[in-house]
Amino acid sequence: MNSFFRVKPFQEAQQMLVGPEAPSLPKRLETVPLLAGLGRVLAENVFSPVDVPGFNRSMMDGYAVIAQDTFGAGEESPVRLVLAGEVMMGCIAEQPLQSGQAMAIATGAMLPENADAVVMVEYTEMITGGQAGDQTLIEITRAVAPGENRLRQGEDVAADQQVFARGTRLGPAAIGLLAALGITTVPVFMPPVVGLISTGDELVSPENNVVGARVRDINSYTLAALARKHGAEVRLYGIIPDEFTLLRETMAQALVECDIVCLSGGSSVGTRDLTQQVLASFPGHQILFHGLHLKPGKPTLAVRIKDKLVFGLPGHPASALTVFRVLVYPLLAPSGPFDRLSARIDRNVASSAGREEYLPVRLEKRDDGEWWAIPVFGKSGVIRPLAEAEGLARIPLAKEGVKKGELLAVIRL
Amino acid sequence: MNSFFRVKPFQEAQQMLVGPEAPSLPKRLETVPLLAGLGRVLAENVFSPVDVPGFNRSMMDGYAVIAQDTFGAGEESPVRLVLAGEVMMGCIAEQPLQSGQAMAIATGAMLPENADAVVMVEYTEMITGGQAGDQTLIEITRAVAPGENRLRQGEDVAADQQVFARGTRLGPAAIGLLAALGITTVPVFMPPVVGLISTGDELVSPENNVVGARVRDINSYTLAALARKHGAEVRLYGIIPDEFTLLRETMAQALVECDIVCLSGGSSVGTRDLTQQVLASFPGHQILFHGLHLKPGKPTLAVRIKDKLVFGLPGHPASALTVFRVLVYPLLAPSGPFDRLSARIDRNVASSAGREEYLPVRLEKRDDGEWWAIPVFGKSGVIRPLAEAEGLARIPLAKEGVKKGELLAVIRL
Repeated sequence: MNSFFRVKPFQEAQQMLVGPEAPSLPKRLETVPLLAGLGRVLAENVFSPVDVPGFNRSMMDGYAVIAQDTFGAGEESPVRLVLAGEVMMGCIAEQPLQSGQAMAIATGAMLPENADAVVMVEYTEMITGGQAGDQTLIEITRAVAPGENRLRQGEDVAADQQVFARGTRLGPAAIGLLAALGITTVPVFMPPVVGLISTGDELVSPENNVVGARVRDINSYTLAALARKHGAEVRLYGIIPDEFTLLRETMAQALVECDIVCLSGGSSVGTRDLTQQVLASFPGHQILFHGLHLKPGKPTLAVRIKDKLVFGLPGHPASALTVFRVLVYPLLAPSGPFDRLSARIDRNVASSAGREEYLPVRLEKRDDGEWWAIPVFGKSGVIRPLAEAEGLARIPLAKEGVKKGELLAVIRL
Repeated sequence: MNSFFRVKPFQEAQQMLVGPEAPSLPKRLETVPLLAGLGRVLAENVFSPVDVPGFNRSMMDGYAVIAQDTFGAGEESPVRLVLAGEVMMGCIAEQPLQSGQAMAIATGAMLPENADAVVMVEYTEMITGGQAGDQTLIEITRAVAPGENRLRQGEDVAADQQVFARGTRLGPAAIGLLAALGITTVPVFMPPVVGLISTGDELVSPENNVVGARVRDINSYTLAALARKHGAEVRLYGIIPDEFTLLRETMAQALVECDIVCLSGGSSVGTRDLTQQVLASFPGHQILFHGLHLKPGKPTLAVRIKDKLVFGLPGHPASALTVFRVLVYPLLAPSGPFDRLSARIDRNVASSAGREEYLPVRLEKRDDGEWWAIPVFGKSGVIRPLAEAEGLARIPLAKEGVKKGELLAVIRL
């Protein structure tokens, strides 16, 4: 594998993973209760089983009428109709409306048979006793056209109409529409399964005591947290020592159980070589790229093994988190409008043209009403400042550094 | 309660709920495994139990040295040290470093005793055989200062140092730092419990068939979805008919089990009156506001009952969702930098000065590189367009409508 060291521009690597030619990960579908569908992606087109509304419905508080009866009505020439009762909310009118009659109706109630419009209560007056005699009359001072203030059966959603296409991500309002249609379970894609393997003889698990010169495994936790944040399923394979057979066995198991496998750690040359040997031992492996014009993330490796993807990520926590966010995360959760903002960088940052660079930043809204991005990295190898990172600020390929106050795109962590 | 109809400006209502004088909801804490702490809010200050790193650590691949031995070294005047072995990653050097010696060391490995700096491998040459005799010599062409390329024990995080304050929301990078410290469970606030009650005789649950003039309950689903999206616990009390005793009993139970109770529906005058009667029957109830200069959301009601909050929301799905998002949701999840963006409104919208208005919109990135907000509401009472809503565009109080192309703030749904 070493002989095929394929350094790629970052954009090209991204395109290989999410572009039109990208290898597609296995798609599995499951059916979940409606509320559990929030944030999930529809695996099938959804059609309405019913008309919504299911009946001709009033859009106003007022009186259901036959529109023709009101023609010519005005302030100076009111039309009088006989009040033939009231349609209660959720009920069906006891009798059809006859010409010359009106029925009281509230917003959302069902129009009586024959009624084709609603006169708003503001344009009416009720007359009882005296000239009205035994009847109650409704005086109408504004004509309505047929269909006015009426929502026709099926006008909102018609039965058999497609309401959502396969691939739609369900937000809160979409969940509401499905409830309105009586759809209480939804077919969705199962989230991708991401396997995380930490390598490096120096690592111990966070729950263990650190002895001697060992350090705790951080990457399994940052990457798992980020992957789970948008619903990916994560499997942690723990820390695997730098030993060919052990690493190969774990990798083989992860390739069966996961869609995407990420190896992190292995900052030492020996571990890097071992990772490559292990991946090269799987028949039909295909190196997508090995090395990126990206900082941090230069030594990143991506290999396709059958229909699965394997990433070799750098060992340093900030680097592993960055590469995972910009390359792997987009495979789990497509980017939406709220995943990115523009912010002014808080200090001059040197950078080399010819590679894309990402800086972990925290964000601060200043008195000028703008977001400022404050880089949080410290000395090399230090992790505490990173814990404040809310996003990654991008210094584009062509820039040789940025000046304090320049606007940069910041992606959400 | 009717006699205390308290119409408030929207900003004032918001301040009553989240400002410094706002009533505080009950706070309960629980301890959860580290990864389950993602997105949760720390209930206690967190102090580090350990030094990180736990030992003096090399920040470079190279040779551990006693800095003083390298003083005066340069291209023209290299210094030669005797190679005294190698410190393996994760291991402790077998012996202390003596003056005149160097030990090979990789990034992240532990400095041997007495070593106080690391010379990068780029500034060294290894000399074996010939003039070196039995020894292996390391020729150093650049002097290092004490501490150079060394991360001191505890330099990143010192034992007993406070790493996070109570109230910090834990992101992926923060989870990583806690892992590094060996903290595998975290004390967090329990998410607020939100109870949802739908009222209105015309409603049926989505899983039921719609008969006659009834309609399915949408609000329980949109509000539950939005509340759960950021981790609130939701209890659904279903649809309660317009009957005093039933509604009061349900409300009494919800007030025991929840921190915030939202009633929605009840668009009919009768239901509204009933809601008010029920709330007024709880001793010590305090009306925060009743009526808002907000569109939609004019009839919104907020009542404090002991240490709990009750909201009466409008019945129309778009209205209920809007009021819940702008008034109730901020009590569940504090707003972050990525919860809002600026977008150009896609059409002229009329509005009245003197009230704040929110429009459900979908977002589209156009060729000009800007986000455009496309209002998705249709005819009054129609819900299908709402299902596409990704955010709410805000027309500020003082504006009499907006023109196509104007920039508006859009909050995330």
